[in-house]
Amino acid sequence: MEKVFTVGIDVGGTTSKFGIVSSEGKILAQDRIPTNKHEDVSEFIDELYNMLMPMIEEAGGSAACRGIGMGAPNGNIYTGNIEFAPNLVWKGIIPIASLIQKKFELPTRLTNDANAAAMGEMMYGCARQMKHFITITLGTGVGSGIVVDGKILVGHDGFAGELGHTIIRPGGRLHKGTGMRGSLEAYASATGVRETAIEMLSVYPELTSLLRDYAIKDLTSETVFNCAMQGDTIANDIFEFTGQILGESLANFIMFSSPEAIVLFGGLTKAGDLLLKPTRKHMEANLLPIFQNKVKLLFSELKEADAAILGASALVNA
Amino acid sequence: MEKVFTVGIDVGGTTSKFGIVSSEGKILAQDRIPTNKHEDVSEFIDELYNMLMPMIEEAGGSAACRGIGMGAPNGNIYTGNIEFAPNLVWKGIIPIASLIQKKFELPTRLTNDANAAAMGEMMYGCARQMKHFITITLGTGVGSGIVVDGKILVGHDGFAGELGHTIIRPGGRLHKGTGMRGSLEAYASATGVRETAIEMLSVYPELTSLLRDYAIKDLTSETVFNCAMQGDTIANDIFEFTGQILGESLANFIMFSSPEAIVLFGGLTKAGDLLLKPTRKHMEANLLPIFQNKVKLLFSELKEADAAILGASALVNA
Repeated sequence: MEKVFTVGIDVGGTTSKFGIVSSEGKILAQDRIPTNKHEDVSEFIDELYNMLMPMIEEAGGSAACRGIGMGAPNGNIYTGNIEFAPNLVWKGIIPIASLIQKKFELPTRLTNDANAAAMGEMMYGCARQMKHFITITLGTGVGSGIVVDGKILVGHDGFAGELGHTIIRPGGRLHKGTGMRGSLEAYASATGVRETAIEMLSVYPELTSLLRDYAIKDLTSETVFNCAMQGDTIANDIFEFTGQILGESLANFIMFSSPEAIVLFGGLTKAGDLLLKPTRKHMEANLLPIFQNKVKLLFSELKEADAAILGASALVNA
Repeated sequence: MEKVFTVGIDVGGTTSKFGIVSSEGKILAQDRIPTNKHEDVSEFIDELYNMLMPMIEEAGGSAACRGIGMGAPNGNIYTGNIEFAPNLVWKGIIPIASLIQKKFELPTRLTNDANAAAMGEMMYGCARQMKHFITITLGTGVGSGIVVDGKILVGHDGFAGELGHTIIRPGGRLHKGTGMRGSLEAYASATGVRETAIEMLSVYPELTSLLRDYAIKDLTSETVFNCAMQGDTIANDIFEFTGQILGESLANFIMFSSPEAIVLFGGLTKAGDLLLKPTRKHMEANLLPIFQNKVKLLFSELKEADAAILGASALVNA
C-alpha cells in the first residue's frame, strides 16, 4: 500500500479501542484491549504494541503512518500526560504520549477522550461545518467536549470541558468517584439512572412497577428502558427525571457558550425520545428567551467508539 | 489636536456613561446621561449627541475620531442590535449601532455590556496577557464576559456569556425580571443580597441583629456590609450564603472553560474579604482536584465604568 494513514486510540476506563484511519477518515481496521487489567502502564503499552503493530504493518508500515492520536480520560493536550484520572488504574501523572511515541517510534499526541469524540463529530459527524457546539457523552459517566470558533476548548491548562462534574443539585446525590454531591454525572449517566431507579422504587413502595421483578443488581439503564417501553410508570418517571436534570444542565451550558447544537452520544441515548423529550422540555424552560427554540439537540450519527478513534486520529493533523 | 481617539459608550439600565479614549487607552473626558427616562430610543440618541458631540469637537473633531464602540445589555456584536433587553425601557429589537452611526456619521460597533467590560479588563486591567479568563460583574444584576484564547466568547448567535442567568438552585428563588427560579443573579447581586437579608430576618425571628433597626426599604447590600463589619451574625451569614452560591457557580464555570483567573467587578465587591473568603472556599470545595488551587480569584483594578468605556472603545480597533 502507498497511501498514508494515521492511528487513533481511545483509552477508556474498561476497554481501549484503536484503529487505522485513512486520509479520507475511514476506519480501515480496528481492535480493542482491556485497559484496567494492566496495573503497570508499560504492560498496557506492550500489549497495545503487540496488537497494533501488525495492523500498522498491514496498512503499509510505519513509514506510511503519519502518527498516533490518542484520547484518554484526563488526557492533557499541552503535556501529553494522563493526570489523576479517577476511572483508570494508573494513578498520578502518566506521560503516556511520550511512552507510546518511544515504543512505536511514531509522533504521538494526546487529548481528553471527550474532546477526541467532539473532534470526530466535527470532522465526520453531524457537527460538520459547525463552529460552536457541545458534545455530551451519556455513558457509564458523563463526558463532554466543547467547540468554540471551530476549535476544541481546552482552556488555560488543558482541562476545560468537564461538564459531567458541574453541580446541578447542590447538596444532592453523592458521586462516589469524586466525593462531590449533585453533579450532572451523578444523575444523567447509566450509573445515575440505576441509582434513580433504586431511589424511586424505595420512595414509592406502594406503586407497582415491572422494575420490582428485577434483582437490584440487574437494575440497569437498559432494564429501565425496556420497562418504560412497556408503559411502566416508574420507569417513565425515571427518564423524565433524568431528562429534567440533563435539560437544566444543558440550559446552563447554552447560556455559557451559545452553541449552535448540542450533540448527545453514548449508551443512554438508546432511550431515544424517552430521554430526548423531557431533556428538550426542561432545557427550553430554563433558557432566557434570547436562546429559546434556537439550539439544536441532536443524537450523534457516529458510533461512539468510531467518533473517539476518528477524533483522536485527527489530532495528528491538527 | 492632532491625535486620533475613539469614543466608548456604556449603556446601563439606569445610566449611560461615555468617554473620549486616547490611543494609549486613557479616558480624556467622560460624562453620563440617564438611560430609561427616554422611552423612545431616538430621544436618547438626541440627548447623547448633544452631550457627546461637543466632547468630540474638543478632542479634535470627527475627522480625528476613529469611531464609536458601545456596550449595552443584550447588545449583539453580529447585528449591532439591542435585542429584548429586560432591563431597558426599549423593547424588542433596537438597531442602535446603525442609528448612532447615522446620527454621528461615525463608524459604530456594539457588543454586550459585560463583554465590553471584559475587553477593558483584558486590554487595560488585571487580565492583561491572559488568554483565558472570566469577568463577573456583581452589581444590581450579575453580568459576565468570557475570554477564550484571547477573544471574547460570543458563540453562535452573539449572546454567549449570560452566566448570571445560569441556574444554581433549581426551583429556588424567583428572579422577577426573567421569571426563572434559582439563577445566580437571584442571589449574588445587590438585589439578591437584599432579598437574602429579608429572608434571613424573617426565618430567624429569635436572633437579634443590627439589621432589624432598618426599615425594609433601607435594607441594601451596603447596610448589610456595614452591619457585618460591626460583627452582626446575620449580616455575616448573608455574605457567607452569597459567597457559597457564587463559589458553587464559579466552580461550574471553571470546569467549563478552565480559565486562568476570574475577575470580579461591581458594587458587591466592596464587601472585600467578607465576600471573597466564602466564595473562594465554596469554589474550591466544588472543583475536581485537577482544577483546585489553580484559578486566581481577583478583584478588578479598574473602576467598573472605566472598564466598560475602555472596553467598548476597543471594539473600534477590533
